[in-house]
Amino acid sequence: MQGMKPTEDRELLNEEKDRRMHERFMRQAIELARRSVDQGGGPFGAVIVKDGQVVATGHNRVVPSCDPTAHAEVTAIRAAAEALGSFDLSGCEIYTSCEPCPMCLGAIYWARIDRMYYGCDQQDAARIGFDDSFIYREIALDPAQRRLRSCRLLADEAREAFRAWEAKPDKTEY
Amino acid sequence: MQGMKPTEDRELLNEEKDRRMHERFMRQAIELARRSVDQGGGPFGAVIVKDGQVVATGHNRVVPSCDPTAHAEVTAIRAAAEALGSFDLSGCEIYTSCEPCPMCLGAIYWARIDRMYYGCDQQDAARIGFDDSFIYREIALDPAQRRLRSCRLLADEAREAFRAWEAKPDKTEY
Repeated sequence: MQGMKPTEDRELLNEEKDRRMHERFMRQAIELARRSVDQGGGPFGAVIVKDGQVVATGHNRVVPSCDPTAHAEVTAIRAAAEALGSFDLSGCEIYTSCEPCPMCLGAIYWARIDRMYYGCDQQDAARIGFDDSFIYREIALDPAQRRLRSCRLLADEAREAFRAWEAKPDKTEY
Repeated sequence: MQGMKPTEDRELLNEEKDRRMHERFMRQAIELARRSVDQGGGPFGAVIVKDGQVVATGHNRVVPSCDPTAHAEVTAIRAAAEALGSFDLSGCEIYTSCEPCPMCLGAIYWARIDRMYYGCDQQDAARIGFDDSFIYREIALDPAQRRLRSCRLLADEAREAFRAWEAKPDKTEY
């Protein structure tokens, strides 16, 4: 996957017959990215939209919030879930000033966001020192081959918690 | 990668000559996972350790916190960064009751955690309805082939924010 330029899914622009609306939301994400730099964060912004309305925005706050997970998309997703009162963001679209890293892309899947519009890509990010592609490559490897050393431990005992989940009658699945 | 059973890096246990210490931290993560079920969360817990001391713990709070990113590992990483006053968790180890999903694995890389110990694996998780492997497969695909529809937009304008980052003399890199 690395090094391949993502193909545009142009239908996403045509079918809405409103490229200007998408561009407006993307410009808002880019403006958040630009302002984030002034505030000591990384140059990344994101906007989450539902039914043509902005639900939440986010920008990179890793340094100012002292939180390595506070990327623009994660921040916007957390804010959107709070605003909508649901961990399920089905029906939402995310506009992000840069193609998401694996952490943020994972968050987009967990949140069940329907569509993604992005500005810069991984290669642009790598050029200014954000090498998401290293993490993309690592995640695709077998755990034993990753740079991150890992070891399995107490698998049988760990499965006990899973059995408690299975046995719970009134659980909310997510 | 999918379907392959992760190989244990047994050296992680031997070199410390203290398997019992690792098991103690893992049991704490498993207990957090078990209690999380009682509290309406998913059956996942995590413990972050530095120099043999617990720095922070986390458990799944997606449903109770209404936050799709509130997985055990992300929650523990955020708490550890706050406790240590740093977005950089170099020198820390994470004990997680289950092999992390791509979002959490990405967070572990961004936090620069050194080592990971895990209990259940992806296959165990899939058996109780948490199909992380779908997200692992999607992330490895070219964007145009993913289930998540995506489209690139305003790349040139988006790069402006990157130029602002490059031009900033006093930025904190992360």
